[in-house]
Amino acid sequence: MFTLVHQDKNGKARLGKLVTEHGEIDTPTFMPVGTHATIKGLYPKDVEEAGAQIMLSNTYHVFLRPGMDVIRKAGGLHKFISWGKPILTDSGGYQVFSLALLRKLSDKGVEFQSHIDGFKHFLTPEDVIDIQSDLGSDIMMPLDECVHYPCTKDHGEVAMKRTVIWAKRSHKHMLEHKKNGPTRKQLLFGIVQGATYEDLRWVCAKELIDIDFDGYSIGGVSVGEPSDLIYNILDFTAGLLPQGKPRYAMGIGYPADIVEAVDRGIDMFDCVVPTRYGRNGTAFTSGGKIPIRNAPYAEDFKPLDEQCSCYVCKNFSRAYLRHLFNAQEMLGLTLLSLHNVYFFLDLTRNIREAIKQDKFKEFKKIFLKRYNESFSS
Amino acid sequence: MFTLVHQDKNGKARLGKLVTEHGEIDTPTFMPVGTHATIKGLYPKDVEEAGAQIMLSNTYHVFLRPGMDVIRKAGGLHKFISWGKPILTDSGGYQVFSLALLRKLSDKGVEFQSHIDGFKHFLTPEDVIDIQSDLGSDIMMPLDECVHYPCTKDHGEVAMKRTVIWAKRSHKHMLEHKKNGPTRKQLLFGIVQGATYEDLRWVCAKELIDIDFDGYSIGGVSVGEPSDLIYNILDFTAGLLPQGKPRYAMGIGYPADIVEAVDRGIDMFDCVVPTRYGRNGTAFTSGGKIPIRNAPYAEDFKPLDEQCSCYVCKNFSRAYLRHLFNAQEMLGLTLLSLHNVYFFLDLTRNIREAIKQDKFKEFKKIFLKRYNESFSS
Repeated sequence: MFTLVHQDKNGKARLGKLVTEHGEIDTPTFMPVGTHATIKGLYPKDVEEAGAQIMLSNTYHVFLRPGMDVIRKAGGLHKFISWGKPILTDSGGYQVFSLALLRKLSDKGVEFQSHIDGFKHFLTPEDVIDIQSDLGSDIMMPLDECVHYPCTKDHGEVAMKRTVIWAKRSHKHMLEHKKNGPTRKQLLFGIVQGATYEDLRWVCAKELIDIDFDGYSIGGVSVGEPSDLIYNILDFTAGLLPQGKPRYAMGIGYPADIVEAVDRGIDMFDCVVPTRYGRNGTAFTSGGKIPIRNAPYAEDFKPLDEQCSCYVCKNFSRAYLRHLFNAQEMLGLTLLSLHNVYFFLDLTRNIREAIKQDKFKEFKKIFLKRYNESFSS
Repeated sequence: MFTLVHQDKNGKARLGKLVTEHGEIDTPTFMPVGTHATIKGLYPKDVEEAGAQIMLSNTYHVFLRPGMDVIRKAGGLHKFISWGKPILTDSGGYQVFSLALLRKLSDKGVEFQSHIDGFKHFLTPEDVIDIQSDLGSDIMMPLDECVHYPCTKDHGEVAMKRTVIWAKRSHKHMLEHKKNGPTRKQLLFGIVQGATYEDLRWVCAKELIDIDFDGYSIGGVSVGEPSDLIYNILDFTAGLLPQGKPRYAMGIGYPADIVEAVDRGIDMFDCVVPTRYGRNGTAFTSGGKIPIRNAPYAEDFKPLDEQCSCYVCKNFSRAYLRHLFNAQEMLGLTLLSLHNVYFFLDLTRNIREAIKQDKFKEFKKIFLKRYNESFSS
């Protein structure tokens, strides 16, 4: 399923290819996030044209609304949302912890109240596999327990151990699915937890590797801890994982985070940042972030990013985009979201090109220097 | 500039071709409306792909925000909004009457307060030509006085006479522009006013024809009067206008209105209805209107309109669109807007095809029967 194509001669950055039922994914890859069965404000055709090879869909949101009945009758998530390329679904665990009202955890599973209508649900790790099987995602995640930062070691250990137990049950249930059901090619990743404690991460990684998942996610990062700590956890945890399997840093991140994580051997990323910032009027560019509402852009007829070849940069000026935000026009939100998604996808394209040429360290240096310079033109 | 290509043998419906600086327009034509220098929620590329040959932009809104300084520096409206095809601009008069705070009218011009910031502006008919010259629109409208329904004959007569005086000044000013300025190919239409009074319409049309405009608009219709009265005014007024010039029914209308107006010899239409209804969750289809939020669509996996070939109907189900509206997702608004714009453009495409074959009367009968049947499948 995964081929490690090349590793940069001067570091840990890796080039890979992941084969799924709905298509191939070149890694390092960025996955735009579709929360409510939509990448907010964007037509699937435009996301595909921007170069996305895979998207992430949140199981929790789709499970609650429109609900699994509708998805099953639609013939799965791909058909429902009209996305022909691969989809990775999360387990919904993170949203249960961050969004749901009143949750109760036990080894058996998780009980929670919907944040939409207060309705109570109970889900076991097996249920979560069943749901993702019905969604028809190409890559599934097992139910895990994600802790926030800071987190005591005791709490971190309890959550990690439960994550391992649930991972075993999820993997077993998935195998039963494959035995009994129609031939499926859904992949299942294990999620390494353990908060900021290296020994917990070590135990978790070891246990999951024994189960032999199709890939490994690093969970519980970017949950409030400082950047240095994020990078350290990624570095340490990536070092525990097998070379021949994809490594996915869940919820990472900002452009600089992605570059730093690739440098530590991570292959897959997802984040809501491009669309969320786009809706809020902030564009990501090779020269840093642009708050488009600001006065200096009123008569600035340059594109958002002169190095960018996206639809937005080829057709619209900063002045026009600022006007749209000032006039509270929806088009501003969608254009900035599209540019931002393209920017993140283009970043991973450039990263892959640099690794191919064994020049990732050089790329990183130049990119971060330019990106971190305060924007001033 | 305008060629009458064919008139249906069985009625008044006409097929024409209007040549402008930015391209040719096949009539009857529908012009999607871009109020704040954007067709709400839609990328220009998608509107063009849907078949739009011309769009309408509101002078009043653009004049107030971003303002003419920005537009001039951008190199005109086409460049600013990235629309390469023809643009028709209105005079802003209608918005002054319907949106502006505290307006004062005199023969000299109109004073009004911006509805955005309360700032006072004074515009003469000459100013309005200058503004549209700077916008660079392909078809300009002169400042006119539009009355509401009902309107006394005295008031209608005063407004009509002022409209004629302003039309003369506008035309004269436009000729001076062409003499002194760079070679421009902007067209100027006259606007026939006269409320619901045939004798006033007659006088107005006669006076405007003497001036010899590039085309004729019928103003002051669809301002609150019943449908029958709208159709009567259009019928009567169209009959007063020269065969060899395009006829534009301003602000018309709903699908049935467009079909009725074509039957009375009208060539051009504009309306905010497709995008406004789209944002509110109502889709226009060949079988009538669909309020997509309604429960029956929750598990309806058919496209909005099985006869429609738009991006939305080829890719998304009613169930998915309903889900987007229920989840308050922006994508629902933009997809329904796009479908509706396509539906209106497709209607005029089908109308043109029917006229070509001298079958417009038949088309009208079948279309209205199916469209007006209450939606029930």
